[in-house]
Amino acid sequence: MLNPFFINKGPYKISEILILLGINIDMVNDDVDIADISDLTSATKNDITFFHSKKYNEVAKKTKASFCITTENLKNELPNSCNPIVVNHVLISTSKVTEKFYPNAVDDFFDKTCTRIDETKFKDKIKYGKNVLLGENVSIGSNCLIGHNTIIEQNVSIGNNCSIGSNVILRNTIIKKNVNILDGCIVGKHGFGFFPNNTKNYRYPHIGLVIIEENCEIGCGSTIDRGSMSNTVIGKNTFLDNQIHIAHNVKIGENSIIAGQVGIAGSTIIGNNVKIGGQAGISGHLKIGNNVDIAGGSGVIKDLPDNSKVMGYPARSLREFLRENK
Amino acid sequence: MLNPFFINKGPYKISEILILLGINIDMVNDDVDIADISDLTSATKNDITFFHSKKYNEVAKKTKASFCITTENLKNELPNSCNPIVVNHVLISTSKVTEKFYPNAVDDFFDKTCTRIDETKFKDKIKYGKNVLLGENVSIGSNCLIGHNTIIEQNVSIGNNCSIGSNVILRNTIIKKNVNILDGCIVGKHGFGFFPNNTKNYRYPHIGLVIIEENCEIGCGSTIDRGSMSNTVIGKNTFLDNQIHIAHNVKIGENSIIAGQVGIAGSTIIGNNVKIGGQAGISGHLKIGNNVDIAGGSGVIKDLPDNSKVMGYPARSLREFLRENK
Amino acid sequence: MLNPFFINKGPYKISEILILLGINIDMVNDDVDIADISDLTSATKNDITFFHSKKYNEVAKKTKASFCITTENLKNELPNSCNPIVVNHVLISTSKVTEKFYPNAVDDFFDKTCTRIDETKFKDKIKYGKNVLLGENVSIGSNCLIGHNTIIEQNVSIGNNCSIGSNVILRNTIIKKNVNILDGCIVGKHGFGFFPNNTKNYRYPHIGLVIIEENCEIGCGSTIDRGSMSNTVIGKNTFLDNQIHIAHNVKIGENSIIAGQVGIAGSTIIGNNVKIGGQAGISGHLKIGNNVDIAGGSGVIKDLPDNSKVMGYPARSLREFLRENK
Repeated sequence: MLNPFFINKGPYKISEILILLGINIDMVNDDVDIADISDLTSATKNDITFFHSKKYNEVAKKTKASFCITTENLKNELPNSCNPIVVNHVLISTSKVTEKFYPNAVDDFFDKTCTRIDETKFKDKIKYGKNVLLGENVSIGSNCLIGHNTIIEQNVSIGNNCSIGSNVILRNTIIKKNVNILDGCIVGKHGFGFFPNNTKNYRYPHIGLVIIEENCEIGCGSTIDRGSMSNTVIGKNTFLDNQIHIAHNVKIGENSIIAGQVGIAGSTIIGNNVKIGGQAGISGHLKIGNNVDIAGGSGVIKDLPDNSKVMGYPARSLREFLRENK
Repeated sequence: MLNPFFINKGPYKISEILILLGINIDMVNDDVDIADISDLTSATKNDITFFHSKKYNEVAKKTKASFCITTENLKNELPNSCNPIVVNHVLISTSKVTEKFYPNAVDDFFDKTCTRIDETKFKDKIKYGKNVLLGENVSIGSNCLIGHNTIIEQNVSIGNNCSIGSNVILRNTIIKKNVNILDGCIVGKHGFGFFPNNTKNYRYPHIGLVIIEENCEIGCGSTIDRGSMSNTVIGKNTFLDNQIHIAHNVKIGENSIIAGQVGIAGSTIIGNNVKIGGQAGISGHLKIGNNVDIAGGSGVIKDLPDNSKVMGYPARSLREFLRENK
Repeated sequence: MLNPFFINKGPYKISEILILLGINIDMVNDDVDIADISDLTSATKNDITFFHSKKYNEVAKKTKASFCITTENLKNELPNSCNPIVVNHVLISTSKVTEKFYPNAVDDFFDKTCTRIDETKFKDKIKYGKNVLLGENVSIGSNCLIGHNTIIEQNVSIGNNCSIGSNVILRNTIIKKNVNILDGCIVGKHGFGFFPNNTKNYRYPHIGLVIIEENCEIGCGSTIDRGSMSNTVIGKNTFLDNQIHIAHNVKIGENSIIAGQVGIAGSTIIGNNVKIGGQAGISGHLKIGNNVDIAGGSGVIKDLPDNSKVMGYPARSLREFLRENK
């Protein structure tokens, strides 16, 4: 389970799911309960999964799921224990089913459960500023500070000794101890993930959350989106400067230092002890190793091994960049 | 009329306008009323217009305006029906006259007309969070949501089924139906338009507005400035990610997708079905065609025809860029 | 004295300071009072200073300080009147001592001294919006406007005829007359300055402030950090567009124009009449001359003499850049 916060509304009968996808229910003999939707690896016998690219052939062969949303071309890779559900667009169908299980994970409308902190049990437990709002399912550790006008929407857990600044908005986020979130940050909203469609784009659910490990600092005006099918993670003792954007599913390691206005696109994974200079951008779905130095203003468009030092757009060896640009 | 929101304080006698510009009023025989200031093409017989560059020679020849602020060099292009008003700096003089007609279009001081939403007619009509403020001349459709601490300043129209997040500030903006404005956006403020002056810059009026067409989404912490002499427009079903800046007079087409931290400079026009990657920048006064793909981090400094795929700084053919950077 | 706002908690006996640094106090014969910590040039006979790089050999030779935190290798450059205090890490030790003198300069927790403006002496003196908060030690000139939800934390001085927008946060800032701070800005927080440490980074004090000279405008959603050992300064009649980040200790001259999403890294000094295009980035510790033009999207990584016109990443002569990229 990715997220302790999004409530699984299942189980659903497999017939209900097939009807949702516009598929003839005659394909099933036994109208079993489906407990959850999950990826090929995590899915259990009671779950439905999805398989949309041959890149995942190997894991598909081993999935334990009983049902799998997939295509005509891919279905033969699945084991006999897994019933293929053939659709035209695997990801859209997967979104529809995910939305059925997790209907609250699609939209981020303002949290109507918010009340003034003075009317909650936290009134005498923490120090807080004026006009602070708290939603349902919020926990706050000891010795914390919450600044003025800050909105802690539903599904937030804050550890001990944390400082949340003013004008901050949090949702669907787990913050460990000794973390500072500076003024004006927006953390835990859904990512920029949707299926383009010519008259109306189709937003898919984001059932991941944001996890900020201990001793981190997040600079003023930064935005960190929660994950879609996994979590967005900021590792221990990693510091982010102002106006940084971290997209959904990004994972940043420990002891990293990220300067102002950096942007990291969706699903990229960054190692430990990484330094990223101001305004650098990192494309999505990349793997950046440990101890990597990325110079300010660089545009990284491919994976970087451990101990790389890069600069430029596209980013290349720092030595090479400096030689070419003497 | 560009903007239903800015009130034209005219008409003014032509003599008043000449005095404002420090020009001898002897040049006019008949002290007629001037109804409005408008561009060369839109101006009617009762209006004053302006003409500052030979680029506009052809439209100048056909203007219907009775008076035109222009230069000694350009005045002979005007038709006989149009009286030239010769000045040293056409745009500064034009600003002064615009400011006379639209005195409320220069500054964006906080809106003193704002009251708490609970004290307005919207109290029982829409769902809203804590501390929401509404200014004068605001309309909100059915089934809308307005988040906590949001300030809807004067001159805003919101269509049906819209969601405005928390900590949002809107002004001089028309939002059509099914639009989501996410948390922390600032929409409708004047653009970065002024005449530099060594002791005190001179701000010119912004009498345009922001129009956001149906089904759009604007990401967290984005800023969209209203137009100066035309409108800033976001086309139908166009989605913007977080921390984007859209400058004054920009027009973006339909079904476009713009990733995080992109910046689009003033007066640029972008077609339909355009994709712009994260942190890309587009210079001002450009024309970007339909179906254009601009890679993340690119810097576009010239017009791009339909179906272009570009990357780099300056942006060039994607194929060429990748070949050069293998 | 850099900052009228941070209160010097000294003097301290030199023995107390040595104990703090884990140094044997036997090195001093006379347990004198130390009044302040200051740089090599500003320090007087009653102060302690620091010297961490041979780049400062010449000023070190002339320092008037009686004590200096330094290294074994550098100590011999100091005059006889200055007692070296040899440590392993000069800057960390300097931070510890600075923190002792200025304990309030390390953290920027929300300002608990804030009260609603209606409860202050400014109630009838200025025009302000809803939910405005003011901290201790705030002065506001005549004819000022303060927008909705704005938080003016402690240690802020605002001159006459200023407009502060809505959702703004100010702290440790001096604003001269005729300044506009637009919506959503965060000004005066500590910079991104700390000593990395593998389990917990060590933040150093920021005893500088932000000074915004007269006639400036700061665009929506911008962040300006205060200085660490000097001030961050925006010169007269300089205009900043939206979403700009100005790091700690940066000094920008007069009559400069900085377009949207520009970032300027720490301690860089920029001259007068400088124009910087959108999304350009300037590295830290650089010196940019007067009348310099930096094209949008450029990445400046070295000093630029007066009258330079540059473009590119790394930024080079505009003429050269355009020739190479025809």
